Amino acid sequence: MTDLISHAADLRGPTSFPPIADGFAFGGDYNPEQWPESVWADDVELMRRAGVTTATVGVFSWGLLERADGVFEWGWLDRVLDLLHENGIGVALATPTAAPPMWLMKAHPEIATVDENGVRTASGGRLAWSPSSAVFRRYALRMVRALAERYADHPALKLWHVSNELGNENAACYSDETEAAWQHWLAEKYSGIELVNEAWGTAFWGHRYGAFDEVQVPRFARTKHNPGLLLDFSRFSSDALLAHFQAERAVLREVTPTIPITTNFMVMGEPGADDYSRWAREVDIVANDHYLRRDDPHPAGDLAFSADRVRGMAGGAPWLLMEHSTGAVNWQGINLAKTPGQLARNSLAHIMRGADGALYFQWRQSSAGAEQYHSGMLPHAGADTRIFREVTEFGALLKRIAPAAGTTVQKARVAILFDDQSAWSLRATRGPSDRLHAVDLPKDFHRAFTARGIAVDVLPSSAPLDGYDVVLAPTLPLADDSVARALADAAERGAHVQVGFHSGVFDQSGRVLTGGYPGRFRELLGVRVTEVLPLLPEQSVATDAGWRGELWTEDLETPDADVVARYSEGVLAGVPVLTRRPVGAGSASYLATRPDEPGMGAIVDGLVALAALQPIAPIEPGLDVTRRIGDTGSFLFAINHDLENPRTVGASGVDLVSGRPADGAFTVAPGGVAVIREG
Amino acid sequence: MTDLISHAADLRGPTSFPPIADGFAFGGDYNPEQWPESVWADDVELMRRAGVTTATVGVFSWGLLERADGVFEWGWLDRVLDLLHENGIGVALATPTAAPPMWLMKAHPEIATVDENGVRTASGGRLAWSPSSAVFRRYALRMVRALAERYADHPALKLWHVSNELGNENAACYSDETEAAWQHWLAEKYSGIELVNEAWGTAFWGHRYGAFDEVQVPRFARTKHNPGLLLDFSRFSSDALLAHFQAERAVLREVTPTIPITTNFMVMGEPGADDYSRWAREVDIVANDHYLRRDDPHPAGDLAFSADRVRGMAGGAPWLLMEHSTGAVNWQGINLAKTPGQLARNSLAHIMRGADGALYFQWRQSSAGAEQYHSGMLPHAGADTRIFREVTEFGALLKRIAPAAGTTVQKARVAILFDDQSAWSLRATRGPSDRLHAVDLPKDFHRAFTARGIAVDVLPSSAPLDGYDVVLAPTLPLADDSVARALADAAERGAHVQVGFHSGVFDQSGRVLTGGYPGRFRELLGVRVTEVLPLLPEQSVATDAGWRGELWTEDLETPDADVVARYSEGVLAGVPVLTRRPVGAGSASYLATRPDEPGMGAIVDGLVALAALQPIAPIEPGLDVTRRIGDTGSFLFAINHDLENPRTVGASGVDLVSGRPADGAFTVAPGGVAVIREG
Amino acid sequence: MTDLISHAADLRGPTSFPPIADGFAFGGDYNPEQWPESVWADDVELMRRAGVTTATVGVFSWGLLERADGVFEWGWLDRVLDLLHENGIGVALATPTAAPPMWLMKAHPEIATVDENGVRTASGGRLAWSPSSAVFRRYALRMVRALAERYADHPALKLWHVSNELGNENAACYSDETEAAWQHWLAEKYSGIELVNEAWGTAFWGHRYGAFDEVQVPRFARTKHNPGLLLDFSRFSSDALLAHFQAERAVLREVTPTIPITTNFMVMGEPGADDYSRWAREVDIVANDHYLRRDDPHPAGDLAFSADRVRGMAGGAPWLLMEHSTGAVNWQGINLAKTPGQLARNSLAHIMRGADGALYFQWRQSSAGAEQYHSGMLPHAGADTRIFREVTEFGALLKRIAPAAGTTVQKARVAILFDDQSAWSLRATRGPSDRLHAVDLPKDFHRAFTARGIAVDVLPSSAPLDGYDVVLAPTLPLADDSVARALADAAERGAHVQVGFHSGVFDQSGRVLTGGYPGRFRELLGVRVTEVLPLLPEQSVATDAGWRGELWTEDLETPDADVVARYSEGVLAGVPVLTRRPVGAGSASYLATRPDEPGMGAIVDGLVALAALQPIAPIEPGLDVTRRIGDTGSFLFAINHDLENPRTVGASGVDLVSGRPADGAFTVAPGGVAVIREG
Repeated sequence: MTDLISHAADLRGPTSFPPIADGFAFGGDYNPEQWPESVWADDVELMRRAGVTTATVGVFSWGLLERADGVFEWGWLDRVLDLLHENGIGVALATPTAAPPMWLMKAHPEIATVDENGVRTASGGRLAWSPSSAVFRRYALRMVRALAERYADHPALKLWHVSNELGNENAACYSDETEAAWQHWLAEKYSGIELVNEAWGTAFWGHRYGAFDEVQVPRFARTKHNPGLLLDFSRFSSDALLAHFQAERAVLREVTPTIPITTNFMVMGEPGADDYSRWAREVDIVANDHYLRRDDPHPAGDLAFSADRVRGMAGGAPWLLMEHSTGAVNWQGINLAKTPGQLARNSLAHIMRGADGALYFQWRQSSAGAEQYHSGMLPHAGADTRIFREVTEFGALLKRIAPAAGTTVQKARVAILFDDQSAWSLRATRGPSDRLHAVDLPKDFHRAFTARGIAVDVLPSSAPLDGYDVVLAPTLPLADDSVARALADAAERGAHVQVGFHSGVFDQSGRVLTGGYPGRFRELLGVRVTEVLPLLPEQSVATDAGWRGELWTEDLETPDADVVARYSEGVLAGVPVLTRRPVGAGSASYLATRPDEPGMGAIVDGLVALAALQPIAPIEPGLDVTRRIGDTGSFLFAINHDLENPRTVGASGVDLVSGRPADGAFTVAPGGVAVIREG
Repeated sequence: MTDLISHAADLRGPTSFPPIADGFAFGGDYNPEQWPESVWADDVELMRRAGVTTATVGVFSWGLLERADGVFEWGWLDRVLDLLHENGIGVALATPTAAPPMWLMKAHPEIATVDENGVRTASGGRLAWSPSSAVFRRYALRMVRALAERYADHPALKLWHVSNELGNENAACYSDETEAAWQHWLAEKYSGIELVNEAWGTAFWGHRYGAFDEVQVPRFARTKHNPGLLLDFSRFSSDALLAHFQAERAVLREVTPTIPITTNFMVMGEPGADDYSRWAREVDIVANDHYLRRDDPHPAGDLAFSADRVRGMAGGAPWLLMEHSTGAVNWQGINLAKTPGQLARNSLAHIMRGADGALYFQWRQSSAGAEQYHSGMLPHAGADTRIFREVTEFGALLKRIAPAAGTTVQKARVAILFDDQSAWSLRATRGPSDRLHAVDLPKDFHRAFTARGIAVDVLPSSAPLDGYDVVLAPTLPLADDSVARALADAAERGAHVQVGFHSGVFDQSGRVLTGGYPGRFRELLGVRVTEVLPLLPEQSVATDAGWRGELWTEDLETPDADVVARYSEGVLAGVPVLTRRPVGAGSASYLATRPDEPGMGAIVDGLVALAALQPIAPIEPGLDVTRRIGDTGSFLFAINHDLENPRTVGASGVDLVSGRPADGAFTVAPGGVAVIREG
Repeated sequence: MTDLISHAADLRGPTSFPPIADGFAFGGDYNPEQWPESVWADDVELMRRAGVTTATVGVFSWGLLERADGVFEWGWLDRVLDLLHENGIGVALATPTAAPPMWLMKAHPEIATVDENGVRTASGGRLAWSPSSAVFRRYALRMVRALAERYADHPALKLWHVSNELGNENAACYSDETEAAWQHWLAEKYSGIELVNEAWGTAFWGHRYGAFDEVQVPRFARTKHNPGLLLDFSRFSSDALLAHFQAERAVLREVTPTIPITTNFMVMGEPGADDYSRWAREVDIVANDHYLRRDDPHPAGDLAFSADRVRGMAGGAPWLLMEHSTGAVNWQGINLAKTPGQLARNSLAHIMRGADGALYFQWRQSSAGAEQYHSGMLPHAGADTRIFREVTEFGALLKRIAPAAGTTVQKARVAILFDDQSAWSLRATRGPSDRLHAVDLPKDFHRAFTARGIAVDVLPSSAPLDGYDVVLAPTLPLADDSVARALADAAERGAHVQVGFHSGVFDQSGRVLTGGYPGRFRELLGVRVTEVLPLLPEQSVATDAGWRGELWTEDLETPDADVVARYSEGVLAGVPVLTRRPVGAGSASYLATRPDEPGMGAIVDGLVALAALQPIAPIEPGLDVTRRIGDTGSFLFAINHDLENPRTVGASGVDLVSGRPADGAFTVAPGGVAVIREG
């Protein structure tokens, strides 16, 4: 049982990034098993033409490697690895555990996840397995060991890629076996059942537990489950998945102690099932998958925010973009193609924020299978296509900017705190408004700073705050006391702290801190909220600062704070909406609504002025800029998101992309990119 | 088996209301078990400040009272009751059966409801139990008996509150055990299976039953079930829940014969699972829960209609508002706060229509549990809040108007007939339009009369109609022959009867009465409908009376009626839409559409003129008025729903709220309330 | 097992149509078992008044005929058939297998379908049975044999109507028994499991199968299933249903070798579960059910397209409209009534396109059961109703146009190819856009030709193309090589071929043909598509031809084709959207978007000009015309869909409907119909 539960992190820190490629890693998932072997030579020839350095191999190939229980067939994979190595392409070798073989699903249907209604996942998809299944674990680790032993000494092997997107389709399981693991996890966390009752407040609805084995997983009920239970179940589910990663890692480490190990995160859009800031401490290299969603009103904002988040998890170190797409995906109803130049802009958006490689799913677009309409580096129509041309051009661009590889993104003076667990705590409760999403206000702030050319670090709330002049906790419901202390300390030493509504409202069990919101930060901010008044989608409320609040309003008192702005209409007319309290050498400000775009601009301008922040470089609207610095120099990255107008950035040096010099100012073409080696 | 089925009503009539409090009852659900005992003194101190007279205690506390099978722990509840009693607060003591303990759910998962798809409800919510579970019944009654015996002689005990919102989450169950109870119920209702076949018309689709044990509960099927079966299954489900109430009542009556017994109804919005006009005959005091829904375009209309309905069920006697909210609820996606003054307006809306008490869910807002964001009398932020101030002010107001307690609402001259069963019959069929809801047209009429200051009684269709000058059956599909006769008799003696479309169309089994709609009322009305032509949401049709019809139109012939209005456009141009037939000293009118607001106004003005109806008092727009009369005098209640303008009502006497005199006219402040002791 | 799988078609060809009625068949489903026997005389009297020739009897009456296992009761049905025969009404006698008796559902719940989540269908609906249930098959065939033997020699028996709408509610089943049948079907289709792996590309996600018994039915999974598997599962499901038909047919053929056998198809709107072009080869007479859907923007277009499709399946021979409605249905939420005259227009829409009969569901509107609000020929209100008058008038009309019965629709010069299987292949894949439906573009083309008075045949893609001057494959993803060759041959001999986007993109297993879309037709068309760029609902793109493209755009190259139109804006500005390649004496054209209405008009005008097509007759806008020809003469049918204005068609002869002569031109009243015997 205990090995199904994650424990303290393996203390071995991440290795440095460079092992897997010279310069920036470039390539993608390579699944030659989907094609006749006669195609492989063409693959490798085109990879060389495109500048591919790295191929992710073996994801999902369990059923092709272990043809029947204990019967392994390595020949094809031997040949793939040899071929790649002969052509100078390194391999991120995946343990193929994301999709169990059909014979295993048939022999052991009990390894599959079960949903809230008791429906067991059938074969035919991927990640159908429960991380709490002992049978699955046994089969998976045997496969992993066999693979590791087979290729331990293969020269192509640069990186272990454990399974795939753990938690994507198996975010939670409601089987009896999972229930036993859950009860075990609870018993480890809480020394007695009364502590559970206290933490979750089970007196509500008389849900008192007499023993751990009464605590069921949150299956179908006609009312919302206890928020404390849901929050802990989210933690358990993340830990159960992490434990699977750790178990595979232990095998790999034993067999190949010098090969770095990672697994691909899914930091994009709204938080999912995994507590990635914890997971990041468990991998040798932080790796991420990122896809644009067509209903995202600010896709470039999501790219930038996610990449800054990933770097924050990696402690500022370089990381790896394990998957993104060259064009349309296939799982979004209407799957938008990328426009000309977008591939370079999207891929560089990760590189400029710290990725040391840009890999795609996948090399050759599948003709069959569930993702046959997911784009690839080599489309259905072949190499004579716009997509393959843009892939090749981007491969060449990466070679030109190779000196920037291994550098790190210049530390920002602004930090936004963001946590998966805080997002989970929002989901675990009902009310005041289901329109509130944990990422929205953080991304609003991030976008406003970015538009002004000001660098932002996005950090787990447990990160040290030294050196930051502005620290924001826009939506952090679950902040604990140490976070509150860290914010207060930062303000004391001169930082300007900006807290958003519905932050600091819960204890670590999701119980509301009483006495007025935001409980944890009330003293620091000098405010007291007595009531939440959520707004309807069509509503907004004017303030005397000229901008309008949306989504959420509050009845706010300011026992110990200055009022910066007040509502100027409606039932809250005259009530403060933005406050500031001088704290030590700095200040602490509270924002009680989601401002409209002008409002967010004004608030960020205020913080910029207070902290005397400077942009990375002077920029015209439409430009997104970052700076990476290292032994090889200082590199100013710029993307022009304006597809109509050239835009100018203040910079001196040479643009490695175009070879053109920058003499104090450099103009980036509409939709273009630049990487200026400064000096 | 038989004790799982409800039988004829306990003949003991309701006791009079006063026992539970002096004056108006005021207070709410009190759940001190959710808080450290150190908080209780503060609770009671604040209750006294707020003027609380009544606390509902013990709802959901089974798991805290019976800690393991047969192991009871009374101490905390003893102390709560003692404390309340010492502070002059009476107790509505709940049997805690709404939420079974976790140990019971684990030991006997078979007590839980099963849904149409065979999914059994898991633990973690409330009302997860099936009323047809014999095991549950046995455990529940043992708990009830233990509780009753423990507190039979406690001086705080004023009222038994049986379980909670029976039928809310356990409206229907599809388990095998329920199926057996259902077949038993059918066998009691129908003396042979052929009567079932005949009643439901099972020849359709060849669904003939050969025996009662072939009649399954309406589980998942890919087509709509037989409407007769669905209608009887609704009746069975209500009876199964009522049988549970009766079983608890029998225990309580045996142990404490003098304590009145009730259970909280949910008369609000659209009808639910319980046939409340039948249930009302089973309780000593009718009690209701009422919550506003944010998507209700006429929330004040729902308050007034529901309260008039509850009074109608209570036979005009005072009733008790068992639950409503001081502010936002937490289960509506976006949960709107109440605006300043709304608490008093909403609470008085029940009082003015006959409630002799206004209780809230709940006293102290929970910090944990599924409803942590449901408002309370004492918010998260404590006593120094607008909500607690308004609570306290309303408690004081109730004391000032205490002379009105125990009086009864003056009988109206207008009656609207409305039945749960008719609403069920609509749901049981498919077609002509799923946009037709049983409450809509009744509430349209009710709102129009109310806006004119004219009192309305809302009655079950079986109620006697003596004394009413206008009787409406706006949407009563299931009216039986006795209703048709009662309407005809009323018209004969001079009343004006107004029937709406789709009334009287079914027999008691949900079979359509053929020969032209509305079968049951065709002769009385002198009309014959040959076809229904439902409208799309964006459609409406003009009439020659200047107003427009929405939702529904009909091809209507008038063999024996005068035409009051006709369609003036479209395929029905020239076809009658509103008719009147002189009947005896009165008349019978048919309305074949849902009129727009001007149309409803014109139609109601017509009825007012015909019957020479007088308003309760002359009012300006925005005012809602009622009159309560009793030994203590005559009391004119007024709520000003206009939040911008003061509004004047014709009245003489003294306003007990403000202490100001009324000399023929009295002006109510914007959003304000008044209770004028007349004379 | 093997008898649960359909095999090669019974080689006996369809008998000619006339046996079932003199002139056009007219009538509908007759369910006297729903009514007291005293009503039957009235039924027959009214049938005679209405001109009814044909009654469909016995659908769903299994439970009334076999009252208990093996206990048959024939009396009532004997009397019904005798009564009808005495009154000159022929009978389409249904095998009552669509709804198993309640005693059978109770005794053998395992006969029911199981859904993707494992939920077994309960009793209470219809078509709840799995076609792969051996137990059901045994009971069903015993019933069929008993019925056939009972009425083999009854003089009223004109036609066997097998079951009802096979595949409507039992389109697919996911039970274990079905799984075994599915594996058996696969083993018959594929000689070894490796061929399955190859066909479906199971290397994707490592879904390689080691044996047929590993291939599960596509139950609930959290990702889309393999498209090849889904496509084959659709084929299997159709075959399983067809096998049931074949099994009933075998019994009927054995007992009554001279009675024609059919089953009612559901060719309307989007394709369903049955591969009707294959099924059409298995019936003696093609019969169809057709209902309007209220959200269809072009209901008349659906009528015309579906009727032309049915005739195409029937090889041009007359067919039978087995069900449609006289007014509203009851299963669409809001169920629109038919407007005056619409009954005649809708019914004649089938007759004019080859139906030799128009039957309705049902004769007498039910008072009970799930369809009590579905209209009938005789409404709830009885014979004195607009609907019954229109029924009677249409019955009389059919008698007047009886000379046209038995004629065939004049063969068109335009053919549109359309297949159920191609529609299934679209559903089996995910991406590029879920807004693409297989019927949309074919119906756009069909509507544009029809509006110009030009006849169109809608054909299965396997049909011979001789004699067609324009051949369209608007949306035919699954075209095989023989289709590609047929199109090329047609062009060579002078036809103008028009292919739409996303045609010819898959092989027969649903794998994408690589090298550029549309793989199968690339050479013929001389084009190459490198990328699909789907549009959002609110998007459209201008072309230099003045019209706009919607839904779908493509990056299109024209290695060997002329460009007819190009995009004139957006990222595809300058890219071809409509091309033409001269081929032999004809041409091949490619259309890469869904044109707006002006665009479709221009494209069709272009094809008309190229092929010098002539209208059936000169018409004014609003008219829909066809011509039927036979030994009895030439008949020009015309429907005026313009409800405001009379419209004129060029014609000479006599209108059989009105008796008025046509002297070169004939004017049809607004909303009216005409059948002109030409000459």
